Amino acid sequence: MRETTRLTSKETAAWLLKRDGFLVLTHSRPDGDTLGCAAGLCAGLRKIGKVAYILENPETTDRYLEYVAPYLAPADFEPQVVVTVDTADVGIFQKNAGPYASRVDLSIDHHASYTGYAAYSCVDVSKAACGEVVYAVLLALGDDLISPEVALPLYVALATDTGCFVYANVTADTLEVASALIRAGADHRRVNKKLFRTKTRGRMALDGALFSGLRFYQDGQIAVALVTQELMTRTGVTENDLDDIATIPNQAEGVRVGIVVKELETGDCKVSVRTAMDVDANAICQQFGGGGHPMAAGCVVEMGPEATAEVLVKAAERQLEK
Amino acid sequence: MRETTRLTSKETAAWLLKRDGFLVLTHSRPDGDTLGCAAGLCAGLRKIGKVAYILENPETTDRYLEYVAPYLAPADFEPQVVVTVDTADVGIFQKNAGPYASRVDLSIDHHASYTGYAAYSCVDVSKAACGEVVYAVLLALGDDLISPEVALPLYVALATDTGCFVYANVTADTLEVASALIRAGADHRRVNKKLFRTKTRGRMALDGALFSGLRFYQDGQIAVALVTQELMTRTGVTENDLDDIATIPNQAEGVRVGIVVKELETGDCKVSVRTAMDVDANAICQQFGGGGHPMAAGCVVEMGPEATAEVLVKAAERQLEK
Repeated sequence: MRETTRLTSKETAAWLLKRDGFLVLTHSRPDGDTLGCAAGLCAGLRKIGKVAYILENPETTDRYLEYVAPYLAPADFEPQVVVTVDTADVGIFQKNAGPYASRVDLSIDHHASYTGYAAYSCVDVSKAACGEVVYAVLLALGDDLISPEVALPLYVALATDTGCFVYANVTADTLEVASALIRAGADHRRVNKKLFRTKTRGRMALDGALFSGLRFYQDGQIAVALVTQELMTRTGVTENDLDDIATIPNQAEGVRVGIVVKELETGDCKVSVRTAMDVDANAICQQFGGGGHPMAAGCVVEMGPEATAEVLVKAAERQLEK
Repeated sequence: MRETTRLTSKETAAWLLKRDGFLVLTHSRPDGDTLGCAAGLCAGLRKIGKVAYILENPETTDRYLEYVAPYLAPADFEPQVVVTVDTADVGIFQKNAGPYASRVDLSIDHHASYTGYAAYSCVDVSKAACGEVVYAVLLALGDDLISPEVALPLYVALATDTGCFVYANVTADTLEVASALIRAGADHRRVNKKLFRTKTRGRMALDGALFSGLRFYQDGQIAVALVTQELMTRTGVTENDLDDIATIPNQAEGVRVGIVVKELETGDCKVSVRTAMDVDANAICQQFGGGGHPMAAGCVVEMGPEATAEVLVKAAERQLEK
């Protein structure tokens, strides 16, 4: 792989200023951060007269569609410059990245695991959301660039990556930028109501069943939630309704290892593990061929939900003893 | 009632500087805002060499005890100056306010309904939390006054009054002050985990039952949750576990009137009504001798939970027709 050239936010602003004809790519299973960054970047670039589009991501859910809709590229758009946002690795490019995957000119990111696949890279791993990095770049392009159209999707980026400013990744910078985006005209009330204070009826019913059915082990240090196909059918939820479901078991007081076992249509199970700071989630999931971060990891287990829960609880018990 | 003298935050700082021997009172059923303000104010006053205490509030729950503990007044403390925080009216003084209720020297508040019962008043109704008003006062007392001991309880005040920055009362100012408090050393991660990301096992079970048992009317525009004594006993929750329970029905997509009916030990019911912006919660509750704000109101109904739910749904239906 070619060496990437690292740029500061100011250098990135200068780099963008010299170019035109941008296409912005987002990551697979796109969240509010990657989509918000793409929309905010396009809005900012257009404000200084550039041509800028987002490559439509077929996995975009209804939750986020309104933010990217104004910027979707026409089918015949031929970009001069390809940019990715919030995308650590080529392996998680949006599924239709196709011909663009091998020619990314610039990556703007905040992941420590960023692999340097782009010719130029603007990466700040101290930021909770990639939206903070995009904000710094746009601010360097011009103080007056942060219009309401720029501010709204960047607010979505910050808020969604932080659970609306409640997760441990929040810093003083995150809140300062969020404040500036609201001053610039982002309608945070509407965003907060839609994204954080509204559940579908199906998700309400699913949460009800999961909260009521949590299983506790080891004096309540381990909690397990089972999301079976039967439960999903009964409550009427779809994949779109499952945002942040991995965080549920850990909300119970005293839980140090939270495990969500989700039965796939194949009958195998997708497992999410979330842990307290002193328990290694990654080590638990590696035993099943998965992995991730110290406090958040996942794996796929080729067994039914009950059997999967059983082996995961055993692995968690062993990890707690360490 | 005597006329109150209105002070700006700067004038309040000068007023405090000239006095000593402070006792800070909080409101009944104390929340994070009133208790956080009291602790932050005492910490700041002590930093400039003043004697300052909080009058212990017998209704303080375990959630907030650690923040006020360092400042509780000894039984024989004789204050020269009595201050209230976040307390709109004499009617909601802490239950043991006793001899101090008639001699409040200063009230710091953010309620539009503040009645002016104190000799001096520093009130800013544009603030989401009273903690923002106390912050402005302390900042006017000195740039270097915001120590970690001041910042922590003020962060608690801001975060709890805004649901950790998700409610509609959040402004750009709120986030800017929260950012400054984190920079000053408030351990926001610990606060957020404890206050917003942890539920007791009983509350998990209660939420499970409420989410699963929500009743919908008028095409899902009205949602009702019933918290019976039987349910509270079965899930093992106490009054301490019921924070923010009124917000549950409105989390369901499409709900414009959310009603929580809580059966009291007497068999009567306490009702909380939360509404969308265009439906008057106050008007609904006034029919039952209650009241409140346009989007958040309450009442007590002298009937059992099923009968109470029925009359409230009818009142909500009539209000929706307007």
